[in-house]
Amino acid sequence: MIQVSRKEHFNAAHKLWNPKWSEEKNKEVFGPCANENWHGHNFELIVTVKGSPSPETGFVVDLKALSTLIRKEVIDKLDHKNLNLDVDFMKDKMASCENLVMEIWNILEPLVKEITPSGGLYKLTLYETPRNYVEYFGETT
Amino acid sequence: MIQVSRKEHFNAAHKLWNPKWSEEKNKEVFGPCANENWHGHNFELIVTVKGSPSPETGFVVDLKALSTLIRKEVIDKLDHKNLNLDVDFMKDKMASCENLVMEIWNILEPLVKEITPSGGLYKLTLYETPRNYVEYFGETT
Amino acid sequence: MIQVSRKEHFNAAHKLWNPKWSEEKNKEVFGPCANENWHGHNFELIVTVKGSPSPETGFVVDLKALSTLIRKEVIDKLDHKNLNLDVDFMKDKMASCENLVMEIWNILEPLVKEITPSGGLYKLTLYETPRNYVEYFGETT
Amino acid sequence: MIQVSRKEHFNAAHKLWNPKWSEEKNKEVFGPCANENWHGHNFELIVTVKGSPSPETGFVVDLKALSTLIRKEVIDKLDHKNLNLDVDFMKDKMASCENLVMEIWNILEPLVKEITPSGGLYKLTLYETPRNYVEYFGETT
Amino acid sequence: MIQVSRKEHFNAAHKLWNPKWSEEKNKEVFGPCANENWHGHNFELIVTVKGSPSPETGFVVDLKALSTLIRKEVIDKLDHKNLNLDVDFMKDKMASCENLVMEIWNILEPLVKEITPSGGLYKLTLYETPRNYVEYFGETT
Amino acid sequence: MIQVSRKEHFNAAHKLWNPKWSEEKNKEVFGPCANENWHGHNFELIVTVKGSPSPETGFVVDLKALSTLIRKEVIDKLDHKNLNLDVDFMKDKMASCENLVMEIWNILEPLVKEITPSGGLYKLTLYETPRNYVEYFGETT
Repeated sequence: MIQVSRKEHFNAAHKLWNPKWSEEKNKEVFGPCANENWHGHNFELIVTVKGSPSPETGFVVDLKALSTLIRKEVIDKLDHKNLNLDVDFMKDKMASCENLVMEIWNILEPLVKEITPSGGLYKLTLYETPRNYVEYFGETT
Repeated sequence: MIQVSRKEHFNAAHKLWNPKWSEEKNKEVFGPCANENWHGHNFELIVTVKGSPSPETGFVVDLKALSTLIRKEVIDKLDHKNLNLDVDFMKDKMASCENLVMEIWNILEPLVKEITPSGGLYKLTLYETPRNYVEYFGETT
Repeated sequence: MIQVSRKEHFNAAHKLWNPKWSEEKNKEVFGPCANENWHGHNFELIVTVKGSPSPETGFVVDLKALSTLIRKEVIDKLDHKNLNLDVDFMKDKMASCENLVMEIWNILEPLVKEITPSGGLYKLTLYETPRNYVEYFGETT
Repeated sequence: MIQVSRKEHFNAAHKLWNPKWSEEKNKEVFGPCANENWHGHNFELIVTVKGSPSPETGFVVDLKALSTLIRKEVIDKLDHKNLNLDVDFMKDKMASCENLVMEIWNILEPLVKEITPSGGLYKLTLYETPRNYVEYFGETT
Repeated sequence: MIQVSRKEHFNAAHKLWNPKWSEEKNKEVFGPCANENWHGHNFELIVTVKGSPSPETGFVVDLKALSTLIRKEVIDKLDHKNLNLDVDFMKDKMASCENLVMEIWNILEPLVKEITPSGGLYKLTLYETPRNYVEYFGETT
Repeated sequence: MIQVSRKEHFNAAHKLWNPKWSEEKNKEVFGPCANENWHGHNFELIVTVKGSPSPETGFVVDLKALSTLIRKEVIDKLDHKNLNLDVDFMKDKMASCENLVMEIWNILEPLVKEITPSGGLYKLTLYETPRNYVEYFGETT
């Protein structure tokens, strides 16, 4: 088994804000991330697929097909968007990287399986900044 | 003469939108950058000071003092902010990197001179993404 | 379970020198790393915490709190220091990255647990240079 | 157990071409990667060794010895070479990163064991571009 | 005047070979870069445009238009190509970065002027590897 | 005229300390950089040569020859060394990046001229950290 990864990026705005809390509590917990007028990031998303190479192509997965899939299903929905307002699968959720990466997993997991005969989606890594990032392996890990 | 540079960063939201234009024209010219709900970036700002090293310290400028100055006068006003709504010196201006870097120059130029006995501010570099950036040398260049 | 990581950095001097060995043997084994007058590095430390996101915040751990903790307990004791002479928890130990990362684990592990209700410290990564680094998962891995 | 990693690089040409297929099928499957006149990359190879630190040196493995080994056994055979034409261990194989990393594993695994008393080769990471890379843990993982 | 830059990349094969010289002399002068079976790189091209921002857009140049231009006129002719065999404007020239960057200048300079009302192409930077790069300002500098 | 650059690196220890000053004044001016037991960095040195490409090689300067020169004359004297104690050309000078880059210029300038028929050394860039760096163009700029 080999892991193959593809990195894509998107630029988005968000804020961290719990609507059940007062403004004071939001500011106290989230600090400047709770700015009502939003802030934003250049996000980097790394999609890692696990499988065994095809004897005919030498590929675990066609990285062009994987890149096309990620762009169509994820990047186009997030790039130059507001994570709190514009993204249907983030509605009514805290716009944290943790929640975002789990939603991206739910979108990509069945679709990656279709283009990876010997395996499937193994890991997602999401950088919010070069110094803050999350990694998710799906429910089973 | 030697150039000494310090890199700082901030995360901000913005949109490109000319209020004199129709929504159609804004979308046509600025594309996804005109999203009404904003998007954002991890900006990197490099401040370059030119001068001759002091015989006593070996420094053109004390980089700790320069870093403190940049954070107080620029980063604290931009980090986790909305460039269109929250930043007084960007009011009524297009929130482009070109306009932003010129305003930062106007703030920093007189203050950098105070801490650089042999010279002053020489150049500003502002990265909006790792692939898009602007450089400004002040009016005279 | 999701992994959340925060990167911090520090600049330090060290040398590799086994006091039980002759100078010849130290030079033979450690080469230029045994220079008696020290050398140094810009170290990068990545702290990875594993847990499940809080429904209220969307966070596995508050990265501001994690950053504050790392700086107070680790970075302040290592930054602009000599790893062999100035750092109490490295006394009488070889100043290798391997030994350093294990000592950092011992400091951070109980403290990270206090701010991570659903999990705790999962992994430490320490870069000595962009080309040399170590990873540690604690005793159990 | 601690993991210690060393990064090396090489520049090489290759093409993706299955000799059992027609030119049309090769172009269809591999796209521009099937250009008959080759293309190339700056590859980055990260070799990760797992073991426990020696009490005498503080090292899992001597990184100078590891670097010398990687350069002699792998880099010298790949750098400024054509992966399809010049590399004996890639003859008659698709010149994909997946196949290349498995062959490098077969070369390095027994040799790394000789210089790592407490462990051995744990993982190989091969970057073809900054956005495309593969990871391999050997047959057993 | 402000400088605005856009980074693009391409992957290509080449060799350094002077057809007027013997094989011995080519090997002596160019070393492994003269490998008859080619080698290759991930090239990075930074295109820098100088001008003054438009009051209506805040832009010196529309970076989307600049990116589209670079891709159509330069990247599509170089990406996944052999610089010696596949690129018409490099025929009968040594495939060095110096010669390549001058040819790219000749292509881009008139076209960048068309989309930059207040200025034009100012500088090209071409990275062959992260450690080797060239910069060109046109004939006049 | 074209600029060609080569990046090399070295790891060194230093401290900032003016022997004419009291310990109090040194601590006040240089802060943690005055730690008597030293600290250190992974320095990056970029050497930029300006000239016109040779018709026979396509090169402004042979980058292998330039790299060999930099390593022999500069890197070997600085790598794994103490800038204050081990480096003859830094004796009795403040060990700042500004002073170091001027001394490196004095060493390299005549030697680079010998291997650059059409030009010579144009610029030195020295990174002390990824966020702090100096640039020097020689006395005449």
